[in-house]
Amino acid sequence: MNQYIEPVPLEKSYRLINHGPTILVSAAHDGVEDVMAAAWACGLDFSPPKLTVVLDKSTCTRRLVENAGTFVVQIPTVAQAQMTHYVGNHGLNDEPGKLQAAGTKLFRMDGFDLPFVVGCAAWLACRLIPEPHNQAHYDLFIAEIIGAWADSRVFRNGHWEFASADPALRTLHYIAGGQFYAIGDEIVVSGR
Amino acid sequence: MNQYIEPVPLEKSYRLINHGPTILVSAAHDGVEDVMAAAWACGLDFSPPKLTVVLDKSTCTRRLVENAGTFVVQIPTVAQAQMTHYVGNHGLNDEPGKLQAAGTKLFRMDGFDLPFVVGCAAWLACRLIPEPHNQAHYDLFIAEIIGAWADSRVFRNGHWEFASADPALRTLHYIAGGQFYAIGDEIVVSGR
Repeated sequence: MNQYIEPVPLEKSYRLINHGPTILVSAAHDGVEDVMAAAWACGLDFSPPKLTVVLDKSTCTRRLVENAGTFVVQIPTVAQAQMTHYVGNHGLNDEPGKLQAAGTKLFRMDGFDLPFVVGCAAWLACRLIPEPHNQAHYDLFIAEIIGAWADSRVFRNGHWEFASADPALRTLHYIAGGQFYAIGDEIVVSGR
Repeated sequence: MNQYIEPVPLEKSYRLINHGPTILVSAAHDGVEDVMAAAWACGLDFSPPKLTVVLDKSTCTRRLVENAGTFVVQIPTVAQAQMTHYVGNHGLNDEPGKLQAAGTKLFRMDGFDLPFVVGCAAWLACRLIPEPHNQAHYDLFIAEIIGAWADSRVFRNGHWEFASADPALRTLHYIAGGQFYAIGDEIVVSGR
């Protein structure tokens, strides 16, 4: 854990994914740890905070999520674009050394025995809300957010502060075929 | 319809929302039309293409979507930030003149009798896939994308081309309290 990681109040945790960043899903079960990239993650509720994430049946991470009932959604940065793309295109089933090859390092947060990815901009500890029809029919998983943290260099006082941070800490937004966009300039609208 | 609007092949339509933009949902039923902003929309499948969107029970748009069984998801631009924020914070039930006050103008695409919002970067015509449990319990709606179009000044040949377009055409990514970010710089990762 680095010195910049600070807890985010759960009622503000939706703000970490509200702008649609590409995420990394990590999970562990029975001594196996995996991390995959996903573009299809989304807020679902404010209180208690919930999110949705789409996990393909072919992924090892999905099996770990289903078995463990817990997982981490974390938000990688521009500095992690290559790693994010690698773990999104390589499967642990075919490549047991995937995480080492990608340079993905894991750590634990105090009080949460889950695999968190080093170097991300924010982390959401999640507890699966089992919905068998959604999972089987749509690959759609619903979870409650039970812990949230962010790198205070880029998210503080409940807001992303990209303008004043190192551009390498900006969030990634995936299109296809290795093409990402970083998040850009702030636009503030007044009034209601 | 303006001269720049071009169809997007359905198999590439997921790319229009893959980077997590804030969207506008529009629907019409029985002579009533409404438009609302939503941050919680997300890809769900490639073929046939599907998406999820969260629609609060208090909104008039949700009622129209449920009654019509069809709706449009469109992607507003930086130039539309004020309008997007307005239609996200004002309800048609309380303010019948909401769309006029917001400056939201509607048009029809050939062959689709749905209300499309003028000036957006892209549009997805959607057909609701009824899932009563998700709708009632989570406010979560699943739909198939049955038509897709984009402004060819900013999306062409299956890719967003923000770098070469007017910055006013960039997509919006909402955080909270009137704070948006525009999408930023392209990052291309090579290899798999």
